[in-house]
Amino acid sequence: MTHPRILLRYTSLIEEGLFSALQGDSLLYTILRYHMGLEDGRGVQARGKLLRSRLLLFTAEELGTDPETALPGALALEFVHNFSLIHDDIQDNDAVRRGQQTVWLRYGIGQAINAGDLMQGLAVAQAALVGEDAVVALVEATMEMIEGQALDLAFEREKVGTEPYLGMIDKKTGALIRAAFRLGGLLAGAAADVVKDLVELGQDLGRVFQIRDDMLGIWGDGTETGKPHGSDIRRRKKSLPIVIAMADAAGNAIGSATGDERVLLQEIYAKKTIDDADVKRVIDVLDRLNVHQECEEQVNSHLNRADERIAALPFSQQGREEIRELIDYLARRER
Amino acid sequence: MTHPRILLRYTSLIEEGLFSALQGDSLLYTILRYHMGLEDGRGVQARGKLLRSRLLLFTAEELGTDPETALPGALALEFVHNFSLIHDDIQDNDAVRRGQQTVWLRYGIGQAINAGDLMQGLAVAQAALVGEDAVVALVEATMEMIEGQALDLAFEREKVGTEPYLGMIDKKTGALIRAAFRLGGLLAGAAADVVKDLVELGQDLGRVFQIRDDMLGIWGDGTETGKPHGSDIRRRKKSLPIVIAMADAAGNAIGSATGDERVLLQEIYAKKTIDDADVKRVIDVLDRLNVHQECEEQVNSHLNRADERIAALPFSQQGREEIRELIDYLARRER
Repeated sequence: MTHPRILLRYTSLIEEGLFSALQGDSLLYTILRYHMGLEDGRGVQARGKLLRSRLLLFTAEELGTDPETALPGALALEFVHNFSLIHDDIQDNDAVRRGQQTVWLRYGIGQAINAGDLMQGLAVAQAALVGEDAVVALVEATMEMIEGQALDLAFEREKVGTEPYLGMIDKKTGALIRAAFRLGGLLAGAAADVVKDLVELGQDLGRVFQIRDDMLGIWGDGTETGKPHGSDIRRRKKSLPIVIAMADAAGNAIGSATGDERVLLQEIYAKKTIDDADVKRVIDVLDRLNVHQECEEQVNSHLNRADERIAALPFSQQGREEIRELIDYLARRER
Repeated sequence: MTHPRILLRYTSLIEEGLFSALQGDSLLYTILRYHMGLEDGRGVQARGKLLRSRLLLFTAEELGTDPETALPGALALEFVHNFSLIHDDIQDNDAVRRGQQTVWLRYGIGQAINAGDLMQGLAVAQAALVGEDAVVALVEATMEMIEGQALDLAFEREKVGTEPYLGMIDKKTGALIRAAFRLGGLLAGAAADVVKDLVELGQDLGRVFQIRDDMLGIWGDGTETGKPHGSDIRRRKKSLPIVIAMADAAGNAIGSATGDERVLLQEIYAKKTIDDADVKRVIDVLDRLNVHQECEEQVNSHLNRADERIAALPFSQQGREEIRELIDYLARRER
């Protein structure tokens, strides 16, 4: 699959910005550079896709603003995203992130909490460089993301229907993606209705991104994703495919997987260790219930909506094509 | 000891502000209200002294600004302080804070991290209500405080001299107290040199506050402080008295407690459990080395400096008296 052009744009601008903003010589800055793959000899992989910052710069540039001018906003978003990953990895007890040890495993939980806290502060400091509107938009998105993270954690112990689940990902993942479009528009001084359209496009793009992510956590090829096949099942994650299988036809958190099948899923998720055979049994249930297809249909419906919204954007012809290319890629990616 | 007037001021204004800013109906807001002692039936004790917010409002009012106008800045500081306590209690494995279970013990580490993160966001949202200068001052103080917290945690495994220790408390405790004076001045539109004097006063007041806190952690009466006698020794905390005892005459992290005594301190701090007899032996060493007196001398030298700075402030006569009364109280308090 061809790499979309947006994910190749602004790389050195963003990386130089990150490097310059993370120049401090204390332990916490060392930790943050480590996390961002900016320490000596680290690979580019640890930097992540830089999706949110690229989207912000692309939007701002399409609307007539110099990417350099919008850069602090882009760095702010990248910092919010990455502080949440550092804290998330503590909560999920994850050992590996982007091919390297997680921060808490390498530096301890205490300093990982501190490093994340500092990065949240750095995000605000960056946003303040581009004005008070940016600060307000950033902090709103940050708080919404944190609320989504709290819901995700709470759902581990609760039954959850598809609507509450989708509401959670709209916060946890969607908030920052919408903020990328919103900030891109704000920094370009776009009219309120344009900003509103951009945010709605962000909503669809966020859904496409996260639903595909959930699909890869079940059906993804370990060699591509860096996670073993069925990894979300092994971690008992109630991602969208599992939520759909456990919900009834109306999406409520009972039914659908008819009697035996739901009981089987629940039994496996209650086991102390989930082995390869269990993973296979869960995937068999999902396949019998056509869950893969239902996820794809959801992705497609968001793709269609995004298509209409993109057509109405005051972007260049090529800008619209590149956004379409990106969202198609996010919907079909294997990693 | 008479309660200083400043610690009785603005109580209902601040409490109503906190309550109104923490109105959300999600789990995280419930957690934050619990932490702040705002949930049904909770006592006032859990609210803490509200020192930083009162100082900010007092400073702003003395310089001619309405406390209501400055309130968002005061709430912002209180939120930064309290998010750090929520995260600090995780790092220190503390079970009790202000007479009630700590957040992580009651709601789990994951949600305690999230609740602290949200409170850091709420702080920025409040500061943004009073302008971009306030946001910048707040985030600078926040990041300095976090750096201090990281140093404090790192010092647990390192030898530390008195200068690095004092540098750490200037960040961990001092940053927010200086910010209270700085923001009070900024929100009142004070001239740059007045703001500078205020910040220097904050520096001395922060030292007095923290050194006295460290003394109470060793010599405090458990019935007053809510902590058992010698509690910081039991927790192996390298607070100022211990740092002084373990340092040489120049304050470097070797010497001073001559041979036997330093070895004894180090042996006790290396023990698996520190019992009552150990606590007594440590306190005996501190007493033989006149550490209590050295701490008092440090407090007094900051009190004297503060006195001079207070005399030069463009406050009312009564305002200067009240600040003096507060700092004297902080220097002598038993809890």
